[in-house]
Amino acid sequence: MAIKSEQFHLDPKFEGTLQQQIQHLVSQGVLSGRFLPGERMPSSRKLAEWLGVSRITVTLAYAELVANDYLTSRGRSGYFVSESAPPPPMLNQSEGDRQDAVAWDEMVSSRYSYRSSLVRPSDWRDYPYPFIYGQPDARLFDHDNWRRCALEALGRKNFESMTADPYEQDDPKLIEYIVRNILPRRGISAQQDEILVTMGAQNALWLCAQVLLNKDRVAAIENPCYPGLRDILDQTGCQIAEVRVDDDGLPPDELPGNCQVVFTTASHQCPTNTTMPIERRRALLNRSVEEGFVIVEDDYEFEMAFQKAPTPALKSLDRAGSVIYVGSFSKSLFPGLRLGYIVAAKPLIQEARSLRALVLRHPPGHIQRTTAYFLSLGYHDAMVNRMGQAYRRRRSVMDKAIRDHGLQIASGGSHGGSSFWMRAPEGVNTSELALKLRKSGVVIDQGRAFFGREDDNHQFYRLAYSSIPSARIPEGIQRIADVIR
Amino acid sequence: MAIKSEQFHLDPKFEGTLQQQIQHLVSQGVLSGRFLPGERMPSSRKLAEWLGVSRITVTLAYAELVANDYLTSRGRSGYFVSESAPPPPMLNQSEGDRQDAVAWDEMVSSRYSYRSSLVRPSDWRDYPYPFIYGQPDARLFDHDNWRRCALEALGRKNFESMTADPYEQDDPKLIEYIVRNILPRRGISAQQDEILVTMGAQNALWLCAQVLLNKDRVAAIENPCYPGLRDILDQTGCQIAEVRVDDDGLPPDELPGNCQVVFTTASHQCPTNTTMPIERRRALLNRSVEEGFVIVEDDYEFEMAFQKAPTPALKSLDRAGSVIYVGSFSKSLFPGLRLGYIVAAKPLIQEARSLRALVLRHPPGHIQRTTAYFLSLGYHDAMVNRMGQAYRRRRSVMDKAIRDHGLQIASGGSHGGSSFWMRAPEGVNTSELALKLRKSGVVIDQGRAFFGREDDNHQFYRLAYSSIPSARIPEGIQRIADVIR
Repeated sequence: MAIKSEQFHLDPKFEGTLQQQIQHLVSQGVLSGRFLPGERMPSSRKLAEWLGVSRITVTLAYAELVANDYLTSRGRSGYFVSESAPPPPMLNQSEGDRQDAVAWDEMVSSRYSYRSSLVRPSDWRDYPYPFIYGQPDARLFDHDNWRRCALEALGRKNFESMTADPYEQDDPKLIEYIVRNILPRRGISAQQDEILVTMGAQNALWLCAQVLLNKDRVAAIENPCYPGLRDILDQTGCQIAEVRVDDDGLPPDELPGNCQVVFTTASHQCPTNTTMPIERRRALLNRSVEEGFVIVEDDYEFEMAFQKAPTPALKSLDRAGSVIYVGSFSKSLFPGLRLGYIVAAKPLIQEARSLRALVLRHPPGHIQRTTAYFLSLGYHDAMVNRMGQAYRRRRSVMDKAIRDHGLQIASGGSHGGSSFWMRAPEGVNTSELALKLRKSGVVIDQGRAFFGREDDNHQFYRLAYSSIPSARIPEGIQRIADVIR
Repeated sequence: MAIKSEQFHLDPKFEGTLQQQIQHLVSQGVLSGRFLPGERMPSSRKLAEWLGVSRITVTLAYAELVANDYLTSRGRSGYFVSESAPPPPMLNQSEGDRQDAVAWDEMVSSRYSYRSSLVRPSDWRDYPYPFIYGQPDARLFDHDNWRRCALEALGRKNFESMTADPYEQDDPKLIEYIVRNILPRRGISAQQDEILVTMGAQNALWLCAQVLLNKDRVAAIENPCYPGLRDILDQTGCQIAEVRVDDDGLPPDELPGNCQVVFTTASHQCPTNTTMPIERRRALLNRSVEEGFVIVEDDYEFEMAFQKAPTPALKSLDRAGSVIYVGSFSKSLFPGLRLGYIVAAKPLIQEARSLRALVLRHPPGHIQRTTAYFLSLGYHDAMVNRMGQAYRRRRSVMDKAIRDHGLQIASGGSHGGSSFWMRAPEGVNTSELALKLRKSGVVIDQGRAFFGREDDNHQFYRLAYSSIPSARIPEGIQRIADVIR
């Protein structure tokens, strides 16, 4: 039987070239069983006429389909569905009599979906005033060079690094660059086997928690802190000691005497943006040696120190090996990359590496290699530089607008970063505020999620400027001020 | 001060173009603090002469460095290191007095590095006879079209899907293709919210185990089985019931009466390659409903059924919703991709999704989108078809060589796959055999790792043909026979 041109219909919403769409239509016709082996295809001339495309487009699509054995060419007789074409799937089972007989409530032994993380609209890009935190800005990202590096990493000489399963190992090029260029920027020196690449900082913190904590242990965290950290610690069953931060970040004197692990964002407290002074850092390190606890330092956003030079990482002062350092490319590249790293003593890295292998093997090789190229050709530092300049401009526009409209900055931010930590007037519930603002096209982060579960604090909110252009900032701030009034 | 041409040296081992190398040298000179803001660069003519490259190469590199603000051009005065160039890192701390004061043996609460997984040489590509399992073959991979799809997924219109943090969500295009084209091939129908994308099958099995098991529960597994599964179950603290497989795979009658979860590779037992007949499948499903356990079906390698049509997945017979299906792209695309998926009832998917978010957020968006394109343009099915043809040829060469040399196939493989499960003669220890063979350039998988910890079975080994070309097979098999004798 012959397949007719009339069986083909172009979809104006198809993403891709016309040639790709024709390939798609033919291959899916074969795979769905509608086009059978041996059936004759319409001639390229007829199909081109019917679809209103140039004949060369159809010819190129057919050539590609021949190369992939969907079609064969029989000279002047034309094109036919190949006898050895990929076979269609078997017939679908009917769904009629499916009935869930499993008591899932009992079957699920551990529940993870109760967590109340930051609630953000997934369509935040459609809001004109997105003061949303931690999302990439297409205007600042060096898309062309990223694409070029990705292409390089997709080249034949990189076939292995892209495709192979290196079991527990990381890309040596990426590790080398981190050791030689990223860590010195934070005052840290490390050996290659003191580093583990992770699926972002989230994965790094999770691995550390799993290796170090259990239900008999105590972890001290900052209050407020990154909400994901509380969920991570919950999973270990450990006891959580919340330590209230002040204008200098975590006060070491307030730590409980019985903790094994302290989590801190010393250089740039999350979410208050304060920086821990050097004396406190020394006091914290001394206490860790005296009492035998280790410190997990989440050094997020250190690249965004555009106001003044960043303080070195806590890890740079660590002489006892008790600091476990967590870095990430989520802010300086983009969060969808899912790349971060742990720098720590070898025994910790070894356990974290084995656990990572158990859970997911390794971060994809192609992504590690692309990042290594982007770093080593200087694009990363150049982009961080540019982002810093843009953030500085936005921050100063924010700062002025905040003051003009009488809003109150709660703390921090002398080095830079990408957000302000804000205090609402007495009586304003920022969780309700955040919902109300959406109706005015404004997205903010309510502050409640950063505080401990017992700490029903609705007074704070976060305003980020990483995804909103300067020109939109004054109007956005005005709307916040209006709704607060 | 002026920077001299003589400070630049090309590295013949640099991977990349000459232009990239010049960019690399200049940007790293700036980032290392050797080139200071305001310093004059050598003219493009002088640097080109010194390096022995064309002047246009230097000019293009300089232009790129200007675009990235490492250099500025001052018209006829030439190029200078930009005043706003990315700053060098601060000085490195001296390492002199570092001394590890942490008692890591006590500090580590959970140990993961004891695991004895398959030991394989990481330089297996240098062995002439690699009967190694599960690694990609550059000769069979459709590199050009993968690259094309990756480029498409790197395009500006895909910026969001590549870079953004979609929190817990997966790429809808990939999910749609799995639902519409992959699952029907296995006789499975599913809704979009019954699917979760994972970092390969390893991650899928791990998520299922974490959600379903704890120290009060019992998991039944096949013996022998995939070694990674035992490690995954160990981490949950559950009791493991090992059930010996026979020539029809897992015998449902031998399951203990008290288990909550049964793990099976019904269609293609790992590592014995046997297929569970339909009566056993029905018996297993009936028992699961009667006794209230759920079944995790690892449907690995189903694409490689080139001998005869694959049996439908166990999940396709599941009317009670008690089968949790695990699929993977590691074999049909490549393991370094780290993409797999779980198909199961919504309550299970919901918990696994939340746990995945806690551990790693989501598999990188760019990788999900590239795979979606590769699938929807028909390249995946075409490649599976080609791989099947190559594997069929290799398998028949293997089969003949194995018989010619009097080696013994232990079981299975009527549908295809990528390996033979082999039995060594009495008295041969295959763990020792594997080590000895490496000296003859041969890599095989010893069988011990597949058996339970109590089951000190060294009689079996696995020979895969996914990474060895047909022409090398007879000599490789001969060497194995020689060493066994």
